[in-house]
Amino acid sequence: MDTERIWTAGLVIIGDEILSGRTQDKNVAQIASWLNLQGIRLAEVRIVPDVEARIVEAVNALRAAYDYLFTTGGIGPTHDDITVDAIAAALGVPVVVHPKARAILEAYYESRGGITEARLRMARVPEGADLIENRMSGAPGIRIGNIFILAGVPHITTLMLEALSGTLEGGKPLLSRTVGCWVAESEVADLLAATEKAHRECQIGSYPFFKEGRVGANFVVRSTEPDALNACIETLIDALTGNGREIVDGAI
Amino acid sequence: MDTERIWTAGLVIIGDEILSGRTQDKNVAQIASWLNLQGIRLAEVRIVPDVEARIVEAVNALRAAYDYLFTTGGIGPTHDDITVDAIAAALGVPVVVHPKARAILEAYYESRGGITEARLRMARVPEGADLIENRMSGAPGIRIGNIFILAGVPHITTLMLEALSGTLEGGKPLLSRTVGCWVAESEVADLLAATEKAHRECQIGSYPFFKEGRVGANFVVRSTEPDALNACIETLIDALTGNGREIVDGAI
Repeated sequence: MDTERIWTAGLVIIGDEILSGRTQDKNVAQIASWLNLQGIRLAEVRIVPDVEARIVEAVNALRAAYDYLFTTGGIGPTHDDITVDAIAAALGVPVVVHPKARAILEAYYESRGGITEARLRMARVPEGADLIENRMSGAPGIRIGNIFILAGVPHITTLMLEALSGTLEGGKPLLSRTVGCWVAESEVADLLAATEKAHRECQIGSYPFFKEGRVGANFVVRSTEPDALNACIETLIDALTGNGREIVDGAI
Repeated sequence: MDTERIWTAGLVIIGDEILSGRTQDKNVAQIASWLNLQGIRLAEVRIVPDVEARIVEAVNALRAAYDYLFTTGGIGPTHDDITVDAIAAALGVPVVVHPKARAILEAYYESRGGITEARLRMARVPEGADLIENRMSGAPGIRIGNIFILAGVPHITTLMLEALSGTLEGGKPLLSRTVGCWVAESEVADLLAATEKAHRECQIGSYPFFKEGRVGANFVVRSTEPDALNACIETLIDALTGNGREIVDGAI
C-alpha cells in the first residue's frame, strides 16, 4: 500500500470567454500534464466568470482544500482584468505595485511607446507576492502563498509553467499506460473490475471510441508505482487476448 | 436596464481523464454554445474526479445555485462509471432500473450479443428520473428535476443536447459580436472602459492575440439586446479608427 503523501492542486479558470463557448480552453490539459510531471495531482477545476465575488469564493474554497492553487486569466491591462484585485480581496491584503514588475514593464515598453497607467496595471500584485517570469510579453505571473496566478493565453501560460518547473514540492508522478482494444467496453466490464481489484496500487479508466466503423475502448491504467503499472498492464492484455479480444496496434 | 430574468446553468464534468490531462475537454465549449441558444447562461463549471463524495459535493452545490445543472461523463457500463449512483446519493433517492431504458438497451443489443448485467448498468437511474434520447449508442441520458445527466463522449453529448433543444425554459439569448484590431490592448484600455461604461446593456471582453508577427486583440461585446449590441460595436469601431487603429479584416 502506498502511504506516501499525495500532493494536490486546484485550478480556477477566470474567463467569460470560456463560459460563453467562444474560446476553447486549453489550459486544463496543459496544466494537468505539467502538474503530473511535478508529482502533483490536479484534483479539481472551477471555471468562473469575470466577477470578483465569484473569483473570491472559488479561490478561497480551493486554496484551502488543496496544497496548491493555480489560476489562469484576467491579469492583463484592461477593465475586465480583475484577477489581482479579486485574489487580494480573497486574502484580505491590499494591492500594491511590485517594484520589480514595474521595472520589467518599463524596460519592455521602452521601445514600445513607453509605460502608461494601463500597462502599469500589470505590475499590480497582492501585497507580499513574488513574480513568475514570463519571457514573452513582459507581464509577469504572480505567486503568493500557495497561489500561482498565471496568464490566460495558453502559450504565455506555458512559459510561466516552464519558469516554475522543478520549484514546487511534489510526490511521485502519477504514471499511466493505455491499452486500446477492439471491444465494446460493456463486454469486458467484469474483467476490468476484477483486474483493478487485483492490482490495488492501480486505477483503470475505460474510455470508449468509435473509428473505422468499429467500436473500441482505451483502458488507461494509472499508478505511482512503475512495477505495479506494468504488472497491471500485462495482466490486462493477457486477460483481453485470452478472452479473444484484439488489441489495437500502436495504442500501447 | 434589463430587468428580465436571467436563466443560469452549472456544469459538472466527471472525469479523471480530463484532470489527468490525457483527454482535451470539448464539452464545456459545446454545452456553453448550446445553452446560449436556449437563452441560458453557463455560470460555472466544476471538473471533479471519479470519486462519489466529490461528485455529490459539486452536484449539490451547483444544482442549488443555478436554474439547471448539467453533468457529463461516467454513465457507461464499467466500474468507473459512478455518476448515477453519486447523483442518486446527492438527491437521497435509490437507484432503480428504468423500464424504458431497459427496453431500449435490450432492443439495441439484440443484434450485438444480447443484454448483459454490465449493459443493464446503463438502464440504472435515480428514482423518479426521465430519459434523454440518444440516437447513437442506445444508452440514454437522464433528467431528474433540474439535473441533466449527459454522456462524456462529445459526439454523444451532442446528440443528447439535440434531443433537449427547445425543451428548456430560458430567457433572451446572450448575443455577441467581435471587433479584431491591430493594437496592443494596453493602448486602448481607457477607450474600452469608457465604451463599456457608456453602453450599460453591454459587456466588453478584451482578448490579446499574436499573429503574423504582430500584436492584436479581439474585443468581444456581449448583450441580450441586438440594438444595444450593434450601437456599442459601432461606437467601438469609430473610437478605434478615430484613434488611428487598424481593424482586422474579416474579424467582425
